[in-house]
Amino acid sequence: MATDGCRRTGLKWPLYYVLFMIILSTCTVEAKTRYYKWDVKYEFKSPDCYKKLVITINGMFPGPTITAEEGDTVVVEVTNNLVTENTAIHWHGIRQIGTPWADGTEGVTQCPIIPGDTFVYKFVVDRAGTYLYHAHYGMQREEGLNGMIIVSVPKGQSEPFTYDFDRSIMLTDWYHKSALDHTVGLNSNPFVWVGEPQSLLIQGRGNFSCSAVSIASEPDVCNATRPECSPFALTVVPGKTYRLRIASLTSLSALNFEIEGHNMTVVEADGHFVEPFVVKNLFIYSGETYSVLVKANQDPSRNYWATTNVVSRKPGTPTGQAIFNYYPNRPEQNPPTTPTTGPMWNDSEPRRAQSLAIKAREGFIQTPPATSDKVIILLNTQNKVNGYTKWAINNVSFTLPTTPYLVALKENRLRNKLHHVFDQTPPPTGYDWLNYDINVNQTNVNATSSNGIYRNKFNTTIDIVLQNANMINPNNSETHPWHLHGHDFWVLGYGNGKFDPFNDPKKYNLVNPIMKNTVPLHPYGWTAIRFRADNPGVWLFHCHIDAHFAMGMGIVFEEGIERVGQLPNNIMGCGLTKRLITP
Amino acid sequence: MATDGCRRTGLKWPLYYVLFMIILSTCTVEAKTRYYKWDVKYEFKSPDCYKKLVITINGMFPGPTITAEEGDTVVVEVTNNLVTENTAIHWHGIRQIGTPWADGTEGVTQCPIIPGDTFVYKFVVDRAGTYLYHAHYGMQREEGLNGMIIVSVPKGQSEPFTYDFDRSIMLTDWYHKSALDHTVGLNSNPFVWVGEPQSLLIQGRGNFSCSAVSIASEPDVCNATRPECSPFALTVVPGKTYRLRIASLTSLSALNFEIEGHNMTVVEADGHFVEPFVVKNLFIYSGETYSVLVKANQDPSRNYWATTNVVSRKPGTPTGQAIFNYYPNRPEQNPPTTPTTGPMWNDSEPRRAQSLAIKAREGFIQTPPATSDKVIILLNTQNKVNGYTKWAINNVSFTLPTTPYLVALKENRLRNKLHHVFDQTPPPTGYDWLNYDINVNQTNVNATSSNGIYRNKFNTTIDIVLQNANMINPNNSETHPWHLHGHDFWVLGYGNGKFDPFNDPKKYNLVNPIMKNTVPLHPYGWTAIRFRADNPGVWLFHCHIDAHFAMGMGIVFEEGIERVGQLPNNIMGCGLTKRLITP
Repeated sequence: MATDGCRRTGLKWPLYYVLFMIILSTCTVEAKTRYYKWDVKYEFKSPDCYKKLVITINGMFPGPTITAEEGDTVVVEVTNNLVTENTAIHWHGIRQIGTPWADGTEGVTQCPIIPGDTFVYKFVVDRAGTYLYHAHYGMQREEGLNGMIIVSVPKGQSEPFTYDFDRSIMLTDWYHKSALDHTVGLNSNPFVWVGEPQSLLIQGRGNFSCSAVSIASEPDVCNATRPECSPFALTVVPGKTYRLRIASLTSLSALNFEIEGHNMTVVEADGHFVEPFVVKNLFIYSGETYSVLVKANQDPSRNYWATTNVVSRKPGTPTGQAIFNYYPNRPEQNPPTTPTTGPMWNDSEPRRAQSLAIKAREGFIQTPPATSDKVIILLNTQNKVNGYTKWAINNVSFTLPTTPYLVALKENRLRNKLHHVFDQTPPPTGYDWLNYDINVNQTNVNATSSNGIYRNKFNTTIDIVLQNANMINPNNSETHPWHLHGHDFWVLGYGNGKFDPFNDPKKYNLVNPIMKNTVPLHPYGWTAIRFRADNPGVWLFHCHIDAHFAMGMGIVFEEGIERVGQLPNNIMGCGLTKRLITP
Repeated sequence: MATDGCRRTGLKWPLYYVLFMIILSTCTVEAKTRYYKWDVKYEFKSPDCYKKLVITINGMFPGPTITAEEGDTVVVEVTNNLVTENTAIHWHGIRQIGTPWADGTEGVTQCPIIPGDTFVYKFVVDRAGTYLYHAHYGMQREEGLNGMIIVSVPKGQSEPFTYDFDRSIMLTDWYHKSALDHTVGLNSNPFVWVGEPQSLLIQGRGNFSCSAVSIASEPDVCNATRPECSPFALTVVPGKTYRLRIASLTSLSALNFEIEGHNMTVVEADGHFVEPFVVKNLFIYSGETYSVLVKANQDPSRNYWATTNVVSRKPGTPTGQAIFNYYPNRPEQNPPTTPTTGPMWNDSEPRRAQSLAIKAREGFIQTPPATSDKVIILLNTQNKVNGYTKWAINNVSFTLPTTPYLVALKENRLRNKLHHVFDQTPPPTGYDWLNYDINVNQTNVNATSSNGIYRNKFNTTIDIVLQNANMINPNNSETHPWHLHGHDFWVLGYGNGKFDPFNDPKKYNLVNPIMKNTVPLHPYGWTAIRFRADNPGVWLFHCHIDAHFAMGMGIVFEEGIERVGQLPNNIMGCGLTKRLITP
């Protein structure tokens, strides 16, 4: 439930205007406060016909969409009713300028929210676009705590494209085992991999085949006739144009999204306008959002399949199916065709081509700084740490501290205890570029683990080159969607093979690079990004695949910690933050 | 791993003796400190052949036994590695005199321990006997976090009975679903009951029949040939006498324990010596401990069954089986007989008879105060609160606050916020005795819920009469084992039907009542206990059936809060305790 309030000051406006508006009516000023009150709990649900525990928000899965206007303040009062399990909620794509403590990243910006406690997130949505929210605690995201944030352009402004209706769909993959089961497996030696998801959900609905399970004691555990798992139907009026906001919060899967017989024009990516281009297949990675324009211009006498299919990994999961329903056909009427199965899963070329096609839209280009102050090259490898299978960056597998970095770095009273909180040695900014062969499995798979961080000089420009490589097993390299908290970055380039620090930067797109917060690193390739370290706080940068981050695939940046305001008490309660309690 | 330290002062000894001993050797004084370091985590285990997540301590299930001598200090450093789930550990039967913050009762004496955090429990085991420890957070106990505490008599002293060997066994019941699954069911409307356990474990081993499950995708989930689930064998030498410490930490079940063909002499209950009596069947309720003497005096050429069977509820769980193994027979050699199935589950008479038979041992009688200062009658009923099924005491269903009572009551800075922390209205001390018919289901099942508490005047004597009644459904009344934290109480009497406050107290046993910390309330009966409110702190009193307490079957006592020492910071971190953090 959202209610609108009023903000009494509009920083962008001259004082006389503000005063005038306050006098006129405090409820017509531009920037509002949007209040949400969320009850987060486990419930039995059957999103793909198989009954299991799902995290819901106010009884909903996916969670309610947060809608706001650019410049609004969003207040979300989260009450944790997860029985014995903590939580934290990340507002994915929201930069949290001035509110680094509201980023919702457990271990980085806050202690977890304990069952029974209520945590208030308050932040400004400072740029129109399509964003996400999801649990950021262990692998809890895969239990279902997710949803969308839709920020509209300020009143009186409009997007550089037109459409008749605005619709959105959330794409996820779905497991029948719990995140706890998965995590214990990943942390075991021998390693137990989570495996392929049981189904792909479109807007929280999937189609698992119940014949695959038979539990004598629980005949009702899977029931294909439940209305709850009938396919999601997106109803369209013939001839109309739809802005479709497509988001992925898969736990593992890279996806192809396709609407049978319809082209899609890509116009937005991660909150930034894209120079339009047309696709039949939209590739989307966990943590990304796109807006596409779709015209309902096909034979209106029938419905069409809208499908998701796994790419980049050999699929072990059936096609996700929704119905693109032409009004007035019945939404539950299956199309007469076979659901589309998408392009070949192991053909990475069209995926690389899409990455390269995404440029900032003419008229909305934010030109990047011409040079950077620091270059960090991050080699992505799969490794062993004390016999346990991990991911590592430059041979360091990331672990979270028990006291959040933000508190450890900001609170002077904990400073002299810093060595307890996290490793003071910064992780390496590069790898043995000359000698490392990214195309074969490493001869020595051993890595170390650390919770050390990268500290950026405030207001400098940082280049990151993500370098992919072969995994532990031969002839295998995966796609990793990397997500940066607290910033958007310019996507300067993608390449195949080993990044050449002397020649490849010359090919960077400094003219019209798109800004994003999540970017794919393609198999055996590299991705180069640039960002300004201008947001005081501590920010995670990590692979958005749940299991990969849990296995150490991430790093942390600090910048301008001395400019961070007084930390709120509600982010504390764990680790050494208890030392701040005065007896 | 336990290591012994030294305590430099022995309060019981004259100063010159202490000085002498310090000079002689600081490591030969009587009272020691026993250090334990525990890693608490989830692991896949198959205690009854069915593989599921189990909470282990240092890889062990049941957890390691804490052994100490009367007067020792026990220090347990608990590191929570439960991924996303908190914990708290209660030291069941230890009164925590002077250390009420170490009782391990989440919501009452501490905030939960967050994953990654380490909590140090430190307390004195001030009386020899057999005690327990277990998780005290939600229904987490049923995930397996449990073990025994064995406190021996001081050196030079001995028990009033002799035996050749000291052995112990933990009895539990075992579910295949998670505590989370159970809790969500209990909190649902319509209500989903946890059902009967899948097996009964003896010392962590049970015998579930794998033919009852068939999961095509996981053929290995149940495997009866795993050595992990072969029956526990207690090996005995013919002719020798064994002190068998028997403990129950079942989640739901009241049990009968029997060793085929052997009598047992009961000599200890909940840490107090019992006037010896002989049983063939020992009835034991969750939270109780007994010591029995068993002589290996049967035909030594074969083994014998040691079995547990469910009583008081219609059994839906197979007999728990262990092997009473006569040396040198092989421990895995099954006895030639059929495992014993115990007495009729619904015959409560032998169970009442055992309750009445337990008296304090001659020479070890602690005479109770002749009168009490306050009498509280607690009617136990099943009710509905806003349509949800609950248990209630005097029509109030108990809920825990998010800020622990101990902090809320002790910390002056939170006093003016008390109304936020818990309900200031004390719950009723009685019910409509005259008009209430305990033998039929209530006409109005509605109850209220509250986290209000009973505040006892320090050093007064309190009588509690537990009154059982019919449940919501007709012709049903269950056995409830009630457990008091922070105290032992005298068991003054048991009776059938409705307690008569005028006549029944005349029949109280004030001569040689046993002291206990857990006592059964039999179906349609009453149980009267007396205790001294002489332990400063806040103490839970509750039904020890996991699901019943989760459904509101408990109350809380406060006494002498002004005498409680400065609270340690480590119990804080949740709810309003964050207000104690000074910016």
